[in-house]
Amino acid sequence: MYQDHEFMQAALLQAKKSLSEGGIPIGSVLVINNQIVARGHNQRVQKNSAILHAEMDCLENAGRLTAAQYQKSTLYSTLSPCAMCSGTSLLYCIPRIVVGENVTFQGPEEYLKSQGIEVRVLNDSQCIDLMTQFIEQQPKLWNEDIGV
Amino acid sequence: MYQDHEFMQAALLQAKKSLSEGGIPIGSVLVINNQIVARGHNQRVQKNSAILHAEMDCLENAGRLTAAQYQKSTLYSTLSPCAMCSGTSLLYCIPRIVVGENVTFQGPEEYLKSQGIEVRVLNDSQCIDLMTQFIEQQPKLWNEDIGV
Repeated sequence: MYQDHEFMQAALLQAKKSLSEGGIPIGSVLVINNQIVARGHNQRVQKNSAILHAEMDCLENAGRLTAAQYQKSTLYSTLSPCAMCSGTSLLYCIPRIVVGENVTFQGPEEYLKSQGIEVRVLNDSQCIDLMTQFIEQQPKLWNEDIGV
Repeated sequence: MYQDHEFMQAALLQAKKSLSEGGIPIGSVLVINNQIVARGHNQRVQKNSAILHAEMDCLENAGRLTAAQYQKSTLYSTLSPCAMCSGTSLLYCIPRIVVGENVTFQGPEEYLKSQGIEVRVLNDSQCIDLMTQFIEQQPKLWNEDIGV
């Protein structure tokens, strides 16, 4: 379980990379057998994308995995996954999601749990601080990202 | 309501385009104010994509719309949207989804309805025939697309 924090740091690096590019600071990594197999971050600004949330970018970067690979993976995201990213985890039967924080935004975590996905929320202060500052500075961009 | 069939024909053209490219025959269009604003089709084969289902490709092609635009849109798909595409519709509060068929595959339609989305299923024979033939001919590729 200590490793969850380590992998979250890798996701946080992705979030910071996105911020340095002028983008939304949310990052994600996909882990299989204790190895990071893909990394990604929000690409709304960088690729002008409506669908590349951090988790989606990470899963796209992972390539076309087999069902067996998805089914032994853990998805890390610095922020609680929205309905889209939650739905994608359900499509691929990803059994476990580790969430950096769900203070500044909370997706359908209860729905995920009801469908058998394990959701662990770290509420990491670095993740909270990063999003709090970003939302304060760029409220319009943030609202666009969550369809508000 | 007659127009639903007309827009579904446009989605079906996208599905056939994908098949002609060697891809999975599922197509989608997004309609706002009775105008098609974007078209898309499954890109698993063509772009080696794990996330570009027809509806996702269509929404990506639509670009970064405002919340107000999404909230007056209708999403057409030749096949019942999976958990990912359903989740994306929920993220953007798309109020209405028209489904070509849910005979060969059915996504979480009841969940969509419970969240306030109107789901109309046409069960169009052309959509059913196209998927039935495809699943028979390419079961492995089809299973990959739905995470099985």
